[in-house]
Order: sequence, then C-alpha cells, then structure tokens
Amino acid sequence: MSTEDIAMRALRFETFGDPSVLQLAQIPRPQAGHDEVVVQVHASAVNPSDVKNVSGKMPHTTTPRTPGRDFSGVVVEGPAPMVGTHVWGTGGELGFTRDGAHAECLLLPRGGVRVKPSTLSLDEAACVGVGYITAWAALVDGAGFINRQTVLVVGATGAVGSAAVQIAAWRGAHVIAAVRDASREAEARALGAKHVVFTEDPITFAASVKEITDGQGAQVALDTAGGAQLDATLAAMAHKGRVAVIATPDRHVPIDLLSFYRRELRLIGVNTLSLNAADCAHILDDLAPGFEIGALHAPRIGATFSLEEAADAYNHVTHSRSGGKVLMKIK
Amino acid sequence: MSTEDIAMRALRFETFGDPSVLQLAQIPRPQAGHDEVVVQVHASAVNPSDVKNVSGKMPHTTTPRTPGRDFSGVVVEGPAPMVGTHVWGTGGELGFTRDGAHAECLLLPRGGVRVKPSTLSLDEAACVGVGYITAWAALVDGAGFINRQTVLVVGATGAVGSAAVQIAAWRGAHVIAAVRDASREAEARALGAKHVVFTEDPITFAASVKEITDGQGAQVALDTAGGAQLDATLAAMAHKGRVAVIATPDRHVPIDLLSFYRRELRLIGVNTLSLNAADCAHILDDLAPGFEIGALHAPRIGATFSLEEAADAYNHVTHSRSGGKVLMKIK
Repeated sequence: MSTEDIAMRALRFETFGDPSVLQLAQIPRPQAGHDEVVVQVHASAVNPSDVKNVSGKMPHTTTPRTPGRDFSGVVVEGPAPMVGTHVWGTGGELGFTRDGAHAECLLLPRGGVRVKPSTLSLDEAACVGVGYITAWAALVDGAGFINRQTVLVVGATGAVGSAAVQIAAWRGAHVIAAVRDASREAEARALGAKHVVFTEDPITFAASVKEITDGQGAQVALDTAGGAQLDATLAAMAHKGRVAVIATPDRHVPIDLLSFYRRELRLIGVNTLSLNAADCAHILDDLAPGFEIGALHAPRIGATFSLEEAADAYNHVTHSRSGGKVLMKIK
Repeated sequence: MSTEDIAMRALRFETFGDPSVLQLAQIPRPQAGHDEVVVQVHASAVNPSDVKNVSGKMPHTTTPRTPGRDFSGVVVEGPAPMVGTHVWGTGGELGFTRDGAHAECLLLPRGGVRVKPSTLSLDEAACVGVGYITAWAALVDGAGFINRQTVLVVGATGAVGSAAVQIAAWRGAHVIAAVRDASREAEARALGAKHVVFTEDPITFAASVKEITDGQGAQVALDTAGGAQLDATLAAMAHKGRVAVIATPDRHVPIDLLSFYRRELRLIGVNTLSLNAADCAHILDDLAPGFEIGALHAPRIGATFSLEEAADAYNHVTHSRSGGKVLMKIK
C-alpha cells in the first residue's frame, strides 16, 4: 500500500484563532470499522458556525480538529450496499468533537449518511445541511409546527429563515415572512411567503402580523434574529403561540413576561450542535421528499473555493456581503 | 313558591375598585338546565386573583358579576345521582365571565364539579382550587414534568409553590425548594423538599442547584416569583430544562438568551384563567388520589369570614402578612 492510499489531505487547526490558524495537512486516511462508512467528500459548505468554531467561540470543541459540518460525497468504504452511493449529511459533532468534512475523507457511523435526493447535484447537496436542519429542528421538533398553521419566520431571507419559509409553505402553512425592509420583500415572496412584514419598526411589526391574522397573531414562529427583535416577535403571537430561537446578537434580552404568561406563550431554545450526524440524517429523511418534488430548493452558491483556498473561504463567510453559500469543492 | 325559594344572597360588583365596591345583594337563585348543576356553596376561598379581579386588573371580566373561583358545597339541583353529593371545584371563568362562588348558590355545567376527596372537610376542599390547579397546570401540563425528574420550585412556601412541592414529591420527584432565606427552610422541608436553596443571592442560587444535581441543573422548574428571579432560575436548569412561569412583579424581564438557546431551554407561560371549571375538574381528578392517600394536604386556613364580611375578607388577602388561606364560609 502506497502513501497515497493511507494518507489524505485535511484542513486542521490546533489552536483557536482567525482562519490563518487553518493548516492543510496530510493525515492518515480514516478506515471504516463495524457499522461505519468512509465518505470521499465531494464538497462541503463553510458555515458561519465553522468560522466561529475555529475562532474558539464554541464551548465543546477539542483540538487538533478537522472542521466542517455539511458534506456531500461518495461512500468508498463500509457495508457493501452503501459503497458507491452518493450521499449527503451534516452533524453537530462534525468539526467540534469529531473530525469534520473539510478533508478528502470523512469517517462516520453508517447511520450518519443518507443517499442524496436525485434532484440535487453533489454541489447543491453539500449546501443544504445546517440551514435546513436548523429550520426543521426549530420549527417542527422545537416549536411543534403542525401542517397548515400560521407560521411567522423572522429573518426570512437568511440561511435558516429561507429554509424555514420553504418548509412551512411545503407543509401548507400560511407563511408570514418578516424581513428588515421592503428591499427583501420580493425574495421572501419567491420563497413561498403569503405575506411579508418588516422588522425595521418594532411597533408596526406586531400590528402588521395581527392584522394579517384577523387579530389572532401567529401560532408558530421561528425568530432567527434574537436580540431586541424577540419581544416584538412575542407580541405578534397568538394565545399559546410557540417561538423558537436559534441565535442572538445580544446576550441579555428583555421580554414582556406579564404578557408572556398571560397569553401562555412558549419560548423554545434550539441548538443544532446537539444533533449528531445520525440525528440529522433522520431530519434529512423528512426533508428529502420536499427536494425530490421541488418544493424545497438548495440555497444559491455564492462562492466556490478549493481545499487549498480554505482560509479565503472562511474569510469570505465573515466578510462577504454578497450572500449565497460558500462552498468548498474538495474532489 | 316563596321569595326565599327563588332568591339568594350573592356578592356583586358592578364597577371595578377596592373591596368597598362589593355589595351583598339578593339576586335570583340560578336553576339547573340540561347537563347543569346548582351547588349550594358551603365555603369559598378568597384568592389574590379574586381581589385583582374586583379591582379591574383582569382583562376579560364583564360586570355586573359575582366573584369567587374556588368552592365546595352540596349539589342541590341537577342529574339525580349527583344531587346530595359533596363536591369541590374551581374555574378560570368563575367570577370573570360567569358568576362565581361568593354566593349561596353556583350554577355550573355538570362536568364542572367533582365529588370531593373523603379526606378533606368541605372547608378544606374550598381552599385547594387555584393553588393546586396552577401548580399542576404549570408543572405537569405546562413544563411536562414526568415522575421522578429533578424539579425546582421557586417560591416553595407560597400558595402555588407549596402545592407544587407536594405534587412533585408525591410523584417521586427529587424536589429542590427555593425560598427567600433560611427562615422558610423548615417549612419547605415539611412539604417534601429534599433540598432547600435560597434566592436572596442570585449568584449562589444557581450554583447551589448545580451542586445538588451533580453539576447538571434541574430538569423542570416552576418559577412562581418571576421578575429578576427568572434569569437565575434559567441559569439553574439542566440542558433542555423546562421552566414554567405563572406570575411576575415586573413586566420587562431580561433573560440570557444566548445561554437559553445554547442549552435548549424552554420557557412556558401558564395562565389558569384559561382553564374553565370543566378543565379544572379533570385536573382535580388527577389530584384527588393524592389527597385520598394523604400525600397532598389542603393549605392551612389563615382566617375565616362570612359572606357579610366579604370586604374584610378581600382586604385581608391584600394586607395580612400572617399567611394561610382566607376562607369565606357561606353556609
């Protein structure tokens, strides 16, 4: 066996810091044990959480580590029926407590991968992970969204928000998209929102949602903004409304607690880092039919980098204002 | 039929204000229609929410109105098998949108009353309602308490808190009682708390709960205090912990939202005014076995008044510092 067979290139970090701490290294290629697979990675998105992770902002990460949560690729080792299949996946442990997808090969439990939808290219499949998993975990598993409810998505054109609007619309929800201002209205409607409201004025925001819902308010919300927006989102909810939160720019956030308990609201914290690749694969099972029938769409790819350009890719996630996913093409 | 047969004495208010707006009036005695019962009221607790209601602080109350949520008494009209039974009950509509129990007779749907536990006197049965219903609705239906979890009850010696400690202990929970300071520790332990922590120092509060739970935090909490205490309660929770809130002295309350979503906490607002007498009767079905076997105890009666002394009774609820339930004995 030559060196080429047993080594692979992987992005590694040993200390936390800006993307310059990332090194392209030759490390042993993983081998599949019982009930494991090795995926030859085709592509992997670079998510904001990957950048935060390398910078040391995530609480559970151990080093040295290969980052990268989302992936697509081909199974090259594992149970015979799986070898050669084109798979996708993502996991809250990948890049944090287990080596991730910014490498030529990725070792996973066999339950951590799924055959990708036929309607998605491998490039597209690599971009679905974190955004859609978070949207599903927050809306469905967190806030308990049931088909055909009135759903408010705050930050509707963001990575998670755009996934949430599509999921809710696919499931027959009456979707109200909240975006900062009118410049994003067309984009929100194209995703499937029936109504668009603006967050720039917190007073008229809740009133707009109430007006759209005949005075009732939204039954379920995903607030991707957090911070001061949260109290406005809570004000826009119906009695017993459920609000999932996944992020916040400010740590200490005031809520109107009197109104909260009187209206029997529920606030649900969602952190997809607690979902491992096997957990995420179950959610991909739920999402796949939506991609197969064209109700869900992979996010637009904004920029593509090679593994050698990893630091540029990471910097692009932080500094680019052009939107779209940042894709690292590995094979 | 004489006037005595068709009239009854009832406490009435036509305008909102201090207890002096309450008038003892002769009004028509209600008659039971299909699937209804008339209860001859034996006794009725006066709850803080009754006082707030008369003062105009409740959003949905219509006047003229007879107040009074909790009751015990004897069925004097209704389906034959129910007539003569000793019943108890409570309801979030009673005194708000439907005439309540501070009267000689009370008209209810038949599903709004239950035979009281044999272990409770009629006086005791009249004092159980709001406190126990709120504790159950918050802990079990709200926060999803499952037998044998670690439960934190903040304000453990209050009306709702003391009910919650007993319910949780009865159901095999590891109960941590939070009280203001050491002066209430013995009382909390007597209710069934395994551990007692103090809220007077919010920093050591969460640390104490963590220490008791081997660093994990509580799985379920009922925070009867609200206000600034809430963030300390959230800090004391385990990953995916659920906190029910039922009251707050301050409207705008800050929470650490970053920690909230990262630890996947859930905050659940509970308002028992949304539970009508039939809803509450189902909860009384759940509670009754606890009273029958002596695991749950009626709250101590602190003061007793007659219907004629209603204003004094209401003032006592607001001004007395001696604790115990305020009971209005009607028959």
